[in-house]
Amino acid sequence: MADSNASLGSRSPFADMAPVKFEGVSSDNPLAYRYYDKDQMVLGKRMEDHLRMAVCYWHTFCWDGFDVFGAGTFNRPWQRTGNDRAAADARMAAAFDFFKVLGLPFYCFHDEDITEASDTPDELSNNFKRQTDRLAGYQEETGVKLLWGTAKLFGHPRYAAGGLTNPDPEVAACAIRQIRDCLEATHKLGGANYVLWGGREGYDTLLNTDLTRELENFGRFLSMVVEHKHKLGFDGKILIEPKPHEPMYHQYDFDVATIYGFLKRFDLLGEVHVNIEPNHSTLSGHSFSHEVATAVSLGMMGSIDINTGNYQNGWDTDQFHLDIRDITLALVELLPSGGLDTGGFNFDAKVRRQSSDEIDLVYAHVGGVDALARALLSAADIVERGEIQAFKDERYAGWKGELGQRMLSPDASLETIADHAASAGLDGKHTSGRQEYLENLVNRSLK
Amino acid sequence: MADSNASLGSRSPFADMAPVKFEGVSSDNPLAYRYYDKDQMVLGKRMEDHLRMAVCYWHTFCWDGFDVFGAGTFNRPWQRTGNDRAAADARMAAAFDFFKVLGLPFYCFHDEDITEASDTPDELSNNFKRQTDRLAGYQEETGVKLLWGTAKLFGHPRYAAGGLTNPDPEVAACAIRQIRDCLEATHKLGGANYVLWGGREGYDTLLNTDLTRELENFGRFLSMVVEHKHKLGFDGKILIEPKPHEPMYHQYDFDVATIYGFLKRFDLLGEVHVNIEPNHSTLSGHSFSHEVATAVSLGMMGSIDINTGNYQNGWDTDQFHLDIRDITLALVELLPSGGLDTGGFNFDAKVRRQSSDEIDLVYAHVGGVDALARALLSAADIVERGEIQAFKDERYAGWKGELGQRMLSPDASLETIADHAASAGLDGKHTSGRQEYLENLVNRSLK
Amino acid sequence: MADSNASLGSRSPFADMAPVKFEGVSSDNPLAYRYYDKDQMVLGKRMEDHLRMAVCYWHTFCWDGFDVFGAGTFNRPWQRTGNDRAAADARMAAAFDFFKVLGLPFYCFHDEDITEASDTPDELSNNFKRQTDRLAGYQEETGVKLLWGTAKLFGHPRYAAGGLTNPDPEVAACAIRQIRDCLEATHKLGGANYVLWGGREGYDTLLNTDLTRELENFGRFLSMVVEHKHKLGFDGKILIEPKPHEPMYHQYDFDVATIYGFLKRFDLLGEVHVNIEPNHSTLSGHSFSHEVATAVSLGMMGSIDINTGNYQNGWDTDQFHLDIRDITLALVELLPSGGLDTGGFNFDAKVRRQSSDEIDLVYAHVGGVDALARALLSAADIVERGEIQAFKDERYAGWKGELGQRMLSPDASLETIADHAASAGLDGKHTSGRQEYLENLVNRSLK
Amino acid sequence: MADSNASLGSRSPFADMAPVKFEGVSSDNPLAYRYYDKDQMVLGKRMEDHLRMAVCYWHTFCWDGFDVFGAGTFNRPWQRTGNDRAAADARMAAAFDFFKVLGLPFYCFHDEDITEASDTPDELSNNFKRQTDRLAGYQEETGVKLLWGTAKLFGHPRYAAGGLTNPDPEVAACAIRQIRDCLEATHKLGGANYVLWGGREGYDTLLNTDLTRELENFGRFLSMVVEHKHKLGFDGKILIEPKPHEPMYHQYDFDVATIYGFLKRFDLLGEVHVNIEPNHSTLSGHSFSHEVATAVSLGMMGSIDINTGNYQNGWDTDQFHLDIRDITLALVELLPSGGLDTGGFNFDAKVRRQSSDEIDLVYAHVGGVDALARALLSAADIVERGEIQAFKDERYAGWKGELGQRMLSPDASLETIADHAASAGLDGKHTSGRQEYLENLVNRSLK
Repeated sequence: MADSNASLGSRSPFADMAPVKFEGVSSDNPLAYRYYDKDQMVLGKRMEDHLRMAVCYWHTFCWDGFDVFGAGTFNRPWQRTGNDRAAADARMAAAFDFFKVLGLPFYCFHDEDITEASDTPDELSNNFKRQTDRLAGYQEETGVKLLWGTAKLFGHPRYAAGGLTNPDPEVAACAIRQIRDCLEATHKLGGANYVLWGGREGYDTLLNTDLTRELENFGRFLSMVVEHKHKLGFDGKILIEPKPHEPMYHQYDFDVATIYGFLKRFDLLGEVHVNIEPNHSTLSGHSFSHEVATAVSLGMMGSIDINTGNYQNGWDTDQFHLDIRDITLALVELLPSGGLDTGGFNFDAKVRRQSSDEIDLVYAHVGGVDALARALLSAADIVERGEIQAFKDERYAGWKGELGQRMLSPDASLETIADHAASAGLDGKHTSGRQEYLENLVNRSLK
Repeated sequence: MADSNASLGSRSPFADMAPVKFEGVSSDNPLAYRYYDKDQMVLGKRMEDHLRMAVCYWHTFCWDGFDVFGAGTFNRPWQRTGNDRAAADARMAAAFDFFKVLGLPFYCFHDEDITEASDTPDELSNNFKRQTDRLAGYQEETGVKLLWGTAKLFGHPRYAAGGLTNPDPEVAACAIRQIRDCLEATHKLGGANYVLWGGREGYDTLLNTDLTRELENFGRFLSMVVEHKHKLGFDGKILIEPKPHEPMYHQYDFDVATIYGFLKRFDLLGEVHVNIEPNHSTLSGHSFSHEVATAVSLGMMGSIDINTGNYQNGWDTDQFHLDIRDITLALVELLPSGGLDTGGFNFDAKVRRQSSDEIDLVYAHVGGVDALARALLSAADIVERGEIQAFKDERYAGWKGELGQRMLSPDASLETIADHAASAGLDGKHTSGRQEYLENLVNRSLK
Repeated sequence: MADSNASLGSRSPFADMAPVKFEGVSSDNPLAYRYYDKDQMVLGKRMEDHLRMAVCYWHTFCWDGFDVFGAGTFNRPWQRTGNDRAAADARMAAAFDFFKVLGLPFYCFHDEDITEASDTPDELSNNFKRQTDRLAGYQEETGVKLLWGTAKLFGHPRYAAGGLTNPDPEVAACAIRQIRDCLEATHKLGGANYVLWGGREGYDTLLNTDLTRELENFGRFLSMVVEHKHKLGFDGKILIEPKPHEPMYHQYDFDVATIYGFLKRFDLLGEVHVNIEPNHSTLSGHSFSHEVATAVSLGMMGSIDINTGNYQNGWDTDQFHLDIRDITLALVELLPSGGLDTGGFNFDAKVRRQSSDEIDLVYAHVGGVDALARALLSAADIVERGEIQAFKDERYAGWKGELGQRMLSPDASLETIADHAASAGLDGKHTSGRQEYLENLVNRSLK
Repeated sequence: MADSNASLGSRSPFADMAPVKFEGVSSDNPLAYRYYDKDQMVLGKRMEDHLRMAVCYWHTFCWDGFDVFGAGTFNRPWQRTGNDRAAADARMAAAFDFFKVLGLPFYCFHDEDITEASDTPDELSNNFKRQTDRLAGYQEETGVKLLWGTAKLFGHPRYAAGGLTNPDPEVAACAIRQIRDCLEATHKLGGANYVLWGGREGYDTLLNTDLTRELENFGRFLSMVVEHKHKLGFDGKILIEPKPHEPMYHQYDFDVATIYGFLKRFDLLGEVHVNIEPNHSTLSGHSFSHEVATAVSLGMMGSIDINTGNYQNGWDTDQFHLDIRDITLALVELLPSGGLDTGGFNFDAKVRRQSSDEIDLVYAHVGGVDALARALLSAADIVERGEIQAFKDERYAGWKGELGQRMLSPDASLETIADHAASAGLDGKHTSGRQEYLENLVNRSLK
């Protein structure tokens, strides 16, 4: 690929940058990893294999720093010619140069991230095919792999009222075509998963919305995605991404529990898993660890878009997640289940609009990578010490005892249990939940 | 019942109060209904039959105005002897006097609302039997009916970690006994529904919680409730009440969509419905109308605890719901489905702690009743004019057309649709959703 | 101006549209006013003079429907050539055609709203001068007046870290130049007020922020604005607009009370007033009526950017405000103070991104105008009936009585009052605040 | 005091408990400090003198675990006789035994925390005098000092509509009497500060509220408190505690910036400072560090009630603050100003209602103490390394340069600056704010 890269006429700012290395906690080098030592064994697995980290294409290479109140502030070298073919190619070159600097195993993309601006579905389809071929070349050259691909069904004006849930079948057909193309490309590129983020699958007002029709269509078309995956022989996971609001007033994939009901309704449980994002978790009124625990408990865990919001702003700020304790608490829920399978930790995070230099992209990822690694070491310590699990086992031990087993037996009924409670004079007492003691154990294990 | 009432030695402040009457919109009497004319026909049904309004026992007769920061401010006549048997009896007398003043058809209660303080499960069980007999007498005497009963599984210290989801089977057995007693009493009293509000079914920290075990127990025991209902021949609905948080950090019955998934998982759909509360809706990040629309769409609609919060306070303030537009928007989602069946509108609302006079209870209910009636008239106008429904029909018409039918046909696949989109050169365009126009129609119909 | 308009080569879609007329509540015409009868006398003043309504330039003529997740959906005729000079001129023609259709007395603008894209401060300055001359012509031609002008100090990348509070004096100097130009233009155009919305006056992280320096600069430069206003002889009000967050993590003009402290600190009270926006109010944890009441009480009331959010989305959605009760409650706080002076009600509201037709702009404004008029009639009814004010007078009457006067007398001290309380055995009791009764009175007056 | 303690007939559960000791980070003892080594020097001061930690009386000794949904779960030994004199004495004995176990230098109390239930103001006054004498004895015996006292003006029903801002002067006079007594007792006990938390100083609805009257009374009476402090010769600080809502819909002391305006208005700046609580900070839409930074910048910093909420529950949960990063960020704002003066860190935090054993109180405080100490070490490291401060200095350096000085000079005006910007062709550019780099530095220093 070296020559096509050269043909762009300009080298990316990352082309000659030294790779970020592990230097240990004593290092003061802001461009070194202090915790992420990819070959270090943690709970019997290499750190790299635990975390399966990915860089995202959109925030890091496509976004120019614009927001609703003002124009882009970044002016990256690869953005200076707008979004024509040369720009798309330069963007890709910069992306893979960047991946090499970080030394992470994966990346993720939307179809439109890698292409130039396209006027029609046909153009997009053609441009996308061309660019996925280039991606294949870069993957081979660099060894960087695809964690997941996804079709962008929320950017083009046609999707203002949704993609798969659009009131107009013609728009939904365009969405399906994009998904088909992108799913097939993901398969060809050896992607580990395929994601659907329903950015506009939801509604702005019930007054113009047929909730029942939209959700039935969503269920039907998602079933088709699953069928097509099997037909292709794609063995990655199909993932849905919970988010409660934004851009729509209400989004159908509100949170993990909502998606569970939806998948159960359309008999898609086991076929579709979730891609959890901490910032979406908190916007939906849940902690990150709650969403992970729920997904694990319901057998829906897929992948993680690692990022965070701050708790004062009510929109998706997609910041790099640097809160070790918060990530640790989520990992404590995740690790005992065996951790991520085909999923990974994708840095779906963006530098602040004021962080306008390219080097800020490097600082941000180095900090994010290290926060994850540090949280992994912390959570592993908690799991290995085992006191929290032991406390839980003891707390629920009654369900393995005589009374518990009697109540859970298939013959038990409201009546037999109530009668037993009365005749035995049961008068259950509360025992301490020891929350503060357990929280202290978490802090003790924090690295 | 007249003599037992007399035996309380004191008459309630409502005993001699004139009933609240319908006087029409021109009335300035703050103790008259201006909109609620129970026999007025609306969309082919009497207003009373549409709304099936109920007074709740707990906020209105049991609460003394205390909050976490200070002692009770009310000192109602029937609360002056604490919560002994005489107080429980006086409370009941006052309640039925109050029901007569308002002239509403229903009331609702928790087992502990109607009894004196009880030291043990046995005592509660006995006290409860005695008091339900008294309720039966009052019902007969007054003609007031029971909309639903419920067991209070969150007040006693034993339930600090939950009732049906408690880590300790002995506590869960006590909960089951209370439910059995209360479900049977509700049946005997001719109750139209039976409610489970899982006030402490949830968790304060994941660190001491076995999510999987708790939800499996919850599912299992709820199935037993349903079986027992059938055994009894109780033909009312079993209702669960969504609430996202409070008192627990997280509550399992987070919102309607979460409950859908839970019921589907334990094969209880159709057997269990929801009791929606506007204040809980907004605390979970949804509008009241969203929760109603979701329940209607998923076939889960049961009953409504009509109240509201203000949008600035992040806890359940349970205020009387006076926002005509907000209620109208919910009714617009409800009425086309046929409205409430066994359910009703229960005033699960409390006067502010500063509204310390008994007359405030009357003002509050009069305002709440009239707001509901006014919203009913508004919503009925919208439904009768039909413009909003017509707009929706037109907006989704494509799904009945050729392309839509082709996409929804059983043979359709991701591939056939995508191929068709490509070969036909489909390039769907957005058309206006007309949100402001539709919202103006709502305002036009507001009475 | 007719010829310059013609020179644009295209007429705006509003050029031939019939003006919106008052037709009364019985009208079903969605393009008629049902409540807004500008000459109707309300509390002794014409409706038009009470409300002083304005159309905003930015949302209605500049915004193309883009959001952070997707491209513009509107494609207005006047936006089709990008933002060159012809586009700026066509936009202005369309704006004044639109103003005539609505028949409202005022409009508002940012400097950049009326100009084409400008590469440098010099270009902007020149373009702005040219366009303000054109504005003057249109004002004269149509009779539409300027409610306020403002400089856009948040759109250009240079303002990423703020305008007047920027860490770099060179950027602050550019901001000051824009303000000077815009303030002078506003004066020349006969504007009734001048607004500063500090969109990026705040911080994203404290780690890079010198709070003290930024606020001192802000105070100093705002004082200069006030001095310049006096030098010009501009007799309109200088207005600051409270907003708590967005785009910045924290914004200095958080809410009315915060601005009060800021003005007091820099001795600007009486010189600077507030421009209150309901959607900003709710984002800051306050009701609209709270912010109005606070501004009235502190003598800071200036103008109102009338719009609303929904309560589920945590960002500024700037919807047309159709909640009659909410506006009424704010007007009940405003009217007794004499209402707005130089201020007005500016429709700082945008149609939803899905409302992509030009006619949606008309529907939206018609609904917004009528909601304001209906709320005015409702609030006036409350004020005229006087029961709420009478209740308040009675509630606070003690402060005019002997004890109250003794406590407020200049000689009173903690000691004399405490001693009196002890010697007189004072044991104050709570009396009912009658909240529900008062709320019912509001509903009764709602039109 | 030993004999009066003995006379209670029962020893507290803490009487024979071994003191908690510093054992260092390698300790696994859940009842040892791992970071809090009181004599360790940090930035030139002993850790104990930096943190000045205090135990609060109310949550830890008075609260029985009740909430709005259920009865108390704790049944502490000293709570078993209700709240009679023996109970009040036993409570005090337990409190001082507990203080000795923790080895912290301070405690805090409300007047009603230390007394038995009192029927009238006279009784309260007498009981309070008796109990403060006992406090003096315990202080002498144990060496534990008083960080601050406060009068409880929100618990008694009379205060339902506020204390100092009550509509009824008789109630306000009772409040003033309580404050006088409590301020004098605090002085006598050598208290380091006196706090006013306006739990009910605010409103539930504007419809019954005279905002202007209430705030003027508040200002007047607060001035009297300050005057009385001087008269007494009390040299501690008078502190107000910001909180936005709860129990009232709106509270006047909304946040630090609001209090600044209030103090400025009544000329109390410098006389009254703030007692900041992290959980209140987040409820008001601010981070803990924002409130600290604001108070430091405005010269209002007083003391800290250290606790936290979780970000999903919209009420004051008063949990022990264990988030090292969050506390560190606040300390980074506080330490450069010299830290707390007369203030301290008061554990205004409660164990969860499920943490029903007395030992949970010890676990909770040990965790809280250690979190503070760990954050202090982390923040001190950041301050000592100085990179963040150096970055800020550099970022704002322009204000010390020629252009900055010219703009800030007394002769500068809007016109001179704007003219200079134009003539010099100023065209300021944005430079990176380096947020992620700076955030990484914080993580690097976290212990």
